[in-house]
Amino acid sequence: MPQGQPSVVPDDGLTTRQRRNRPLVFVHTGPGKGKSTAAFGLALRAWNQGWPIGVFQFVKSAKWKVGEERALTVLGASGEGGTVDWHKMGTGWSWVQRDRQLSNEEAAREGWEQVKRDLARETYRLYVLDEFAYPMHWGWVDPAEVVEVLRDRPGNQHVVITGRNAPAELVDYADLVTEMGKVKHPMDTGQKGQRGIEW
Amino acid sequence: MPQGQPSVVPDDGLTTRQRRNRPLVFVHTGPGKGKSTAAFGLALRAWNQGWPIGVFQFVKSAKWKVGEERALTVLGASGEGGTVDWHKMGTGWSWVQRDRQLSNEEAAREGWEQVKRDLARETYRLYVLDEFAYPMHWGWVDPAEVVEVLRDRPGNQHVVITGRNAPAELVDYADLVTEMGKVKHPMDTGQKGQRGIEW
Repeated sequence: MPQGQPSVVPDDGLTTRQRRNRPLVFVHTGPGKGKSTAAFGLALRAWNQGWPIGVFQFVKSAKWKVGEERALTVLGASGEGGTVDWHKMGTGWSWVQRDRQLSNEEAAREGWEQVKRDLARETYRLYVLDEFAYPMHWGWVDPAEVVEVLRDRPGNQHVVITGRNAPAELVDYADLVTEMGKVKHPMDTGQKGQRGIEW
Repeated sequence: MPQGQPSVVPDDGLTTRQRRNRPLVFVHTGPGKGKSTAAFGLALRAWNQGWPIGVFQFVKSAKWKVGEERALTVLGASGEGGTVDWHKMGTGWSWVQRDRQLSNEEAAREGWEQVKRDLARETYRLYVLDEFAYPMHWGWVDPAEVVEVLRDRPGNQHVVITGRNAPAELVDYADLVTEMGKVKHPMDTGQKGQRGIEW
């Protein structure tokens, strides 16, 4: 139950309205569950505002997130809220030619190149860069470049980045960082992933 | 990127299949953002499985969660996945007579009584008890009774409970507990809540 009351009023020369509508960068990191799930929950609010949403899934497997993908696709096509474009690395990015064989590293970089193009064109109002912390953590995409591109992005574009081990530069730059801590997980006691819960 | 590999195989006499389809209790607690958002994200997966979903919002204000409510209501009515019933304490539970004036404490108890009835009848496959940690924390609903009801619930019903300060009995009993830690929040630097982001 957030109270909506800031604890400090900054001396930044902005009006309340300008400050209120500031484009934000969110990072959901940490070992616990809920990082991506909370990002897709945020997409529901964006959809309700009628915002165009771009999801970029930086994961190899196409198995995960099928529930979220179908739900957001149905919502995006319902004509009642915003639109949703769902881009998947796992089955090959749609803008990459089918006959090009990409390593995971190359595929992650191709994804990031497209995000840069879309940010420059202001294609979306909300970007969900799902599991994008991994390619940065693995050194495939330079976190310093990501921060620079985010800092210079035009207009009013919100960006959510998920994944464990978000790099320090990104955490320092982000407006909102949530660390999902694992307190208890059924897999610790032998519970396997199940349909409707894990995917 | 969960690997789906349990770290321990328990000696509980259950088959893998029985263990896999075990009904689960989730708790999303802690001071950070994403507790409710992740619960609604989970509801997207449940919807995709065609499960009936019951959301019980244990909050006074009807302002919050409007995006999630509209999105899940549109999904529930789309005929493509599960159904969604959205119950709100803030505007008065639908099963409580309009002319009855309830205190917050009474209203929270009425909500819990309905959850108990629905669990007994197996009305839903997924229950989102949003902000339900508060009435327990405040002593309005007895956590020991909640644990008892959850332990004895019939069938295959999953329950997600959100809110800060989840009581210890519930955390001990739950299958999955995620503590959302606040690393950084824009309100700390004077950013006010904004449309599409906070609601």
